[in-house]
Amino acid sequence: MKQRPRVVIIGGGFGGLYAARALKRDNIDLLVLDRTNHHLFQPLLYQVATATLAPTDITAPIRWLLRKQRNTTVLMATVDRVDPERRVVIADDGAHEYPYDFLIVAAGARHAYFGHPAWEKIAPGLKSVDDALRIRHRILSAFERAELARDPDERRAWLTFVLVGGGPTGVELAGMIPTIARHCMPTDFRRIAGEKARVVLLEGGPRVLPSYPDSLSGHARNDLAVLGVEVRTESLVTQLEPGSVVVNGSDVIRSNTIIWAAGNAASSLGASLGAPVDRAGRVQVAPDLSIPLHPEIFAIGDMASVVIDGKAVPGVAPAAMQMGTHAAKNIRRTLERRARQPFVYRNKGDLATIGRHRAIADFGRLQLTGGLAWWFWLFLHIMYLAGFRNRLSVLVEWGYSYFTYEPGARLISGL
Amino acid sequence: MKQRPRVVIIGGGFGGLYAARALKRDNIDLLVLDRTNHHLFQPLLYQVATATLAPTDITAPIRWLLRKQRNTTVLMATVDRVDPERRVVIADDGAHEYPYDFLIVAAGARHAYFGHPAWEKIAPGLKSVDDALRIRHRILSAFERAELARDPDERRAWLTFVLVGGGPTGVELAGMIPTIARHCMPTDFRRIAGEKARVVLLEGGPRVLPSYPDSLSGHARNDLAVLGVEVRTESLVTQLEPGSVVVNGSDVIRSNTIIWAAGNAASSLGASLGAPVDRAGRVQVAPDLSIPLHPEIFAIGDMASVVIDGKAVPGVAPAAMQMGTHAAKNIRRTLERRARQPFVYRNKGDLATIGRHRAIADFGRLQLTGGLAWWFWLFLHIMYLAGFRNRLSVLVEWGYSYFTYEPGARLISGL
Repeated sequence: MKQRPRVVIIGGGFGGLYAARALKRDNIDLLVLDRTNHHLFQPLLYQVATATLAPTDITAPIRWLLRKQRNTTVLMATVDRVDPERRVVIADDGAHEYPYDFLIVAAGARHAYFGHPAWEKIAPGLKSVDDALRIRHRILSAFERAELARDPDERRAWLTFVLVGGGPTGVELAGMIPTIARHCMPTDFRRIAGEKARVVLLEGGPRVLPSYPDSLSGHARNDLAVLGVEVRTESLVTQLEPGSVVVNGSDVIRSNTIIWAAGNAASSLGASLGAPVDRAGRVQVAPDLSIPLHPEIFAIGDMASVVIDGKAVPGVAPAAMQMGTHAAKNIRRTLERRARQPFVYRNKGDLATIGRHRAIADFGRLQLTGGLAWWFWLFLHIMYLAGFRNRLSVLVEWGYSYFTYEPGARLISGL
Repeated sequence: MKQRPRVVIIGGGFGGLYAARALKRDNIDLLVLDRTNHHLFQPLLYQVATATLAPTDITAPIRWLLRKQRNTTVLMATVDRVDPERRVVIADDGAHEYPYDFLIVAAGARHAYFGHPAWEKIAPGLKSVDDALRIRHRILSAFERAELARDPDERRAWLTFVLVGGGPTGVELAGMIPTIARHCMPTDFRRIAGEKARVVLLEGGPRVLPSYPDSLSGHARNDLAVLGVEVRTESLVTQLEPGSVVVNGSDVIRSNTIIWAAGNAASSLGASLGAPVDRAGRVQVAPDLSIPLHPEIFAIGDMASVVIDGKAVPGVAPAAMQMGTHAAKNIRRTLERRARQPFVYRNKGDLATIGRHRAIADFGRLQLTGGLAWWFWLFLHIMYLAGFRNRLSVLVEWGYSYFTYEPGARLISGL
């Protein structure tokens, strides 16, 4: 009996998961490797960081999501590197090797600090569950430390929150903090009950949410201002130290809670494939999503740089899903000796929330803002979470938070 | 204007919280200090450890629980020691001092390793949210590692779970693991799909749940056997090493997941008060719950040793609550120049669950077992959680787990 073709997928995020699902009925041996045991619904990660949802509300075990695919094995493994010549994936400090006939690399990205790796300790970024818990820990502890502080300057530094980066993550985090502060400080605290938290959003470019049309981006800025967020554009961070941010080389903001949402660097696995990478470390793939010289290796999601008709495909969840499905189909076509097809990105629209019940939505010709866009966002996210079992508990948490203004997950736990 | 009497409570567990609530209308300045920001519903902690509930389901911010008490300030602070002569509490490595006129010490207990502190790393215990996440991490990772293992002996060691201690915590944890294993292994895993997990419960004495009557304890042992738990009584752990447990000096059980539920040691704050302590480090208090020579200091809950008519008050949540309320009342009586009253423990009954739908209940003359006791347990715990906002989301999680057999919180996150 001939051995079935072996397909290995590295990463169980949106790209890897959708690739695996697209291969469920194929006569192959499919192996999915991930460093963690869970798929993460990343678009809601900021709600874990801002104490509304529990991590388990937005995660599900990858092996559970793929349990019905009898051709699929899921292993929790940390991939060290790929050896494209020998066609093996090397994992767990060389302890395991996984041979493949086809490989899909979907290892995502981490935040990048533009050549200042030491900044990570001062200003954590938001990519994983642990990141989100770390940020939640910092935000909630800041109020506790402010309540303890005797010195007014120290208290102000604890009540000042700086978000670096005006993309969706920075905007979503910035929009939630004033709500927590305004709701909890006057009731739950005594010494800081009469004070106000200061939230500063720093964006290097001329406007927040630069991937959106001008008018929507202006709307978002207004919405943030209404919530009390100080938005500063054309503001580059030039120095970070514990307790302070230096902006444009001169302005100093004293803050003990600085969060980084300013840049991404693709997983270093991309570079290890020997393929050309762009400035952010993303692999420049061919139109069929495979890498040069190795048609059996595909790179997808946040770690792939795909340019179609001169336009870059954005690093968002729907793009990763579409690439995953497309790479899977191209593997099937190859096995069936049919020609591969080039990837086409279908932009179904972009959504970003600002605080409790405002959002902006861009569907090309149709643009929504304010409450309507927010309800649309809510509906879409509940629909997407439907693949998970967590839908109901998320609804309960959101319902609770919405009507009471209470962030329901205000737990500071060790890290 | 005369300064109001200052009452300080150390610890926001059941004892401290109930003491604080009992003082809500008194004309005092009340300060509650806790190392964490949250009150923990400890009786359900084992469900976090076994991946059914999220930590936020069973915790609530202490300052939120006490937000309506205008005489109360809550601070997150790590108490170093008490200086009974100067009447101050010293916290945060000496950074802060809190003077008091009355002090209630309710700092609880940690697990104890009988003179083997090095065992803690091998066999974690279950007292805090972080402990529960650590145990969840170990249990879930064990299945992942078993799936990865090539060597059959190694695989068995990953599929063997040893619980040390046959009290309620050991029994509750032991009862949950077979359910997880039996439900998840055949569907979610591939290489270990045909194998069985082994769960061993070690108890040094002649029977499990020794605080319960003989017949109930026998019932629990039967229930555990039905679930597939190997119960070994008269079995003392004499050596622990990573990967193995030695029982009674000779039997070796190979296991990579060993959990400690065998002993408690009261917070060392008790000893620092200068009062006499028992073998477990608990402060021997007077009938009014104050300590010798310092009638202004009360010790309550798991760190107090209270003996009434020759019978020790057990270290359970209801006892801590009753002591908290009682100490508060004795402070009020003292302020009103009335005589203090001795503490009387009202045992409202004991309940312990075994697995998914069995329990034992001891209400003195009335004893329940099996499904009926379990429903009673469920009802009582939902009622108790009512003080929290978390009731609804716990119900959702339980409903989900009950009908699907899925532990809904199977998240391995960093620690």
